[in-house]
Amino acid sequence: VIALHPLVTLGEILPGDDLARLLAEAIRTAGWLPERNDVLMVTQKIVSKAEGRFVELAGVTPSARAIELAAVTRKDARFVELVLAESTAVVRTAPDVLITRHRLGHVMANSGIDRSNLGPGDQERVLLLPVDPDASAQHLRAGLREYWPEPPAVVISDSFGRPWRLGVINVAIGACGLPALIDRRGETDRNGRRLEVTQVALGDMIASAGGLLTGEGAEGVPAVLVRGLRWAAEDRPAAALVRPLDQDLFR
Amino acid sequence: VIALHPLVTLGEILPGDDLARLLAEAIRTAGWLPERNDVLMVTQKIVSKAEGRFVELAGVTPSARAIELAAVTRKDARFVELVLAESTAVVRTAPDVLITRHRLGHVMANSGIDRSNLGPGDQERVLLLPVDPDASAQHLRAGLREYWPEPPAVVISDSFGRPWRLGVINVAIGACGLPALIDRRGETDRNGRRLEVTQVALGDMIASAGGLLTGEGAEGVPAVLVRGLRWAAEDRPAAALVRPLDQDLFR
Repeated sequence: VIALHPLVTLGEILPGDDLARLLAEAIRTAGWLPERNDVLMVTQKIVSKAEGRFVELAGVTPSARAIELAAVTRKDARFVELVLAESTAVVRTAPDVLITRHRLGHVMANSGIDRSNLGPGDQERVLLLPVDPDASAQHLRAGLREYWPEPPAVVISDSFGRPWRLGVINVAIGACGLPALIDRRGETDRNGRRLEVTQVALGDMIASAGGLLTGEGAEGVPAVLVRGLRWAAEDRPAAALVRPLDQDLFR
Repeated sequence: VIALHPLVTLGEILPGDDLARLLAEAIRTAGWLPERNDVLMVTQKIVSKAEGRFVELAGVTPSARAIELAAVTRKDARFVELVLAESTAVVRTAPDVLITRHRLGHVMANSGIDRSNLGPGDQERVLLLPVDPDASAQHLRAGLREYWPEPPAVVISDSFGRPWRLGVINVAIGACGLPALIDRRGETDRNGRRLEVTQVALGDMIASAGGLLTGEGAEGVPAVLVRGLRWAAEDRPAAALVRPLDQDLFR
């Protein structure tokens, strides 16, 4: 049995907040004592907020390239400038669509930059992804170790669109303390046949499971505790989930 | 709180089996009384097996096109013939890679045809997707209604690779009794800003949550009960998750 528990007592997260302390308090308020193999899934949004990854659009001067892409995508040129600055490549553009390869490797809309739902009066402020979400997950887990000797593993989630399917799902952009990608290459099934599915995106599936509670929009839950998982593989960060460019079939 | 309960007492599923009856027995054995908004996630594999979607490779004669693609992909030409017969388009080929648009619209490896793990002595037998997984889900739910007036919603899952991410995740290929896709277009966030994320792939996230238990390979759990979900949107089948061709940015 796997149980997903929402943490709802965090309050609004502000730049500089000690997220580990706030999450530890929320975990205690929920009456939880972390056990081995527990996972704490936190949304990218609260990690970015605690890390102060806000940018005021008023201070951004768009480049010629940003102005050009803003016309194609019908987006604010200052916003497009930030999207470009956070990316290594533009993957697709269309009206209302700007898909980039984020500097971390993730192919995603708007380099993961968030405009909606940032708090009252924040119409002109946007929120970037954490600088290094795997490092953020490590940092968060290290902070939780001050409260419990065996702190939960950490998954930082974000919602992604997909090329051939409608609707967003959650994926893992940061992870610590678990194998975000399980590699079973070389294993065989019970008939001795080589497994056709050899890599399982555990981090992404945990993120999607947590996404059933974090949802989208005003009532979003910012963090979820997951209990009941088992894994044998060694820890791998979320960076392992990014398909290397030389294996990309869709460039 | 959301709870995921594995159903482990199903045994080997055979063509012609009454899957609703077998699942109802497994649900009772697990001591569950279905409640409103419960979801039963079942793997594609057991639905296909019950529907007898096996094909003997020995009886397949590959076309010239299949032989050509078999050379490129290093796959059995008879297998490739079946993949082509189940698809409307070949999306990408490479050594060990054959990605198609399944006749149901899903872009996936090998048209979802499974070679591994079909049971002892089945080396030359493959398993196709159900003819119409949304109809399979409806049929299954109708069968469960004979046991409980409010049967669980049904999600039929399969594991998919992704273009830019490593590892498979589970997605929904069939659904009944819940909104596989939640459409929030037109809604606003708490600041009155139009939501940027307007469609949520609930069916896919339920499938991935269940995938934490069904796993891959020999010890796979074939079905999972999910309790604790809430939804307000009206029912939509898994077909709603397929991005229409005219919205496909990657053709």
